[in-house]
Amino acid sequence: MDVAAACCENCESQKIKAMKKLDYEQLASLPLFLGIDGSTLSSIYETINPVVAPMRKGNAIITSGEECRSLLFLLEGFVQASAAFGKNRFTIYELVHAVSVVEPQCLFGLHTTYTRNYTADSGGYYLRLPKSVIVRQMMENDVFRFNFTNMLSSLAQDTVNRLRRLPPQTTEAKITDLFSRQVLRPAGRKQIKCKMTDLAECVGETRLNVSRTLHKLEDAGLLSFTRGIIDIPYMEKLIAKVM
Amino acid sequence: MDVAAACCENCESQKIKAMKKLDYEQLASLPLFLGIDGSTLSSIYETINPVVAPMRKGNAIITSGEECRSLLFLLEGFVQASAAFGKNRFTIYELVHAVSVVEPQCLFGLHTTYTRNYTADSGGYYLRLPKSVIVRQMMENDVFRFNFTNMLSSLAQDTVNRLRRLPPQTTEAKITDLFSRQVLRPAGRKQIKCKMTDLAECVGETRLNVSRTLHKLEDAGLLSFTRGIIDIPYMEKLIAKVM
Repeated sequence: MDVAAACCENCESQKIKAMKKLDYEQLASLPLFLGIDGSTLSSIYETINPVVAPMRKGNAIITSGEECRSLLFLLEGFVQASAAFGKNRFTIYELVHAVSVVEPQCLFGLHTTYTRNYTADSGGYYLRLPKSVIVRQMMENDVFRFNFTNMLSSLAQDTVNRLRRLPPQTTEAKITDLFSRQVLRPAGRKQIKCKMTDLAECVGETRLNVSRTLHKLEDAGLLSFTRGIIDIPYMEKLIAKVM
Repeated sequence: MDVAAACCENCESQKIKAMKKLDYEQLASLPLFLGIDGSTLSSIYETINPVVAPMRKGNAIITSGEECRSLLFLLEGFVQASAAFGKNRFTIYELVHAVSVVEPQCLFGLHTTYTRNYTADSGGYYLRLPKSVIVRQMMENDVFRFNFTNMLSSLAQDTVNRLRRLPPQTTEAKITDLFSRQVLRPAGRKQIKCKMTDLAECVGETRLNVSRTLHKLEDAGLLSFTRGIIDIPYMEKLIAKVM
């Protein structure tokens, strides 16, 4: 009985959700639609008829290198972003939380391909608005346009600021800097898949020194590591502590 | 007589130019106005009545930390951009050539202050368009808006790509990486004012090692250095050679 009940609960949570129409209220709360007046938003809502797609843990949503032809909004649940760096010597996995816009800088400009793989890490929903819809909103809607311009400007400002950081001196700081440069957001949980020898090579230190440093950071409760996986529960705490 | 002639030539070149109205053709060739059709551009030209300001070598145009309330276009001549890094341990000077838009990401977003000082390095002209003019063009002009969106997107993409670079391993690469991360554009001539001890501290190497490396790079014709100034004639050649 207990087993059956557990199974049913499990089945319930694993059940694939169906496509559904986005609520009007949800559209109003999306990053780029914030602040648009009610009547304009109603008209947008009727025109774009936003239909959200369900996701199930493990579903691939975007592949790194794929052409960005639509703007993806994560509405509910978690998505895992991952990318390999340094000729595949290490891979960083990080969680993207709802509500988020995925790589908004890829829709325009010179390099319009995604830089990461995005895979569903839970059940949930996402919305894809085709580039044509975004272009139309950029043309017709002042608030949307400035929301988008502000978002792109802030992103450029943030990355320019991150580039200004001076080279790290200690092994702890070298490892932290290596990861914090590559992440989408220098906060939250990050998992890094890498061999100790590759990590040592990337930061220009000996394998023994890297291993000792990871143990020290583990003792301080800033990360944990097992064979080939470094788990950082709070990237912001690690950065604050060692950099 | 010769002296007088030389003096007159000198006076001529040093003469402060007067404010003047921008040519219609010049407006049409500016980065954000490219591709706008003739009649729209004529109407913009009449409305904004663009007046360009003259500059003279040594004139301060923008101070680092100043609030960005207008978009500055360098129309003719050269401007020197400079900024101090690492708690004033080194200062990078680089030339910005006409025609350029200065820090377009500072007009919107969360951090709307300039990151560098800009000083005239030659005679020339610049145009300042107030934020209100840019906002109006963003509202009314589709081509202008997409030019601006593309410019911001490309800037964000470029900086995200620069962040992905792995830590350098050799002393040559460490020095080059330190400078190439901070510059506006990783190409062209750069001058860096710094003490050898400060540079050694910034890259985490000994003073002797840094001095030897600079001599080696000087022998290879990639830079020259005298007391406190490193002169890199072509940043792109240095990057291509050592990274």
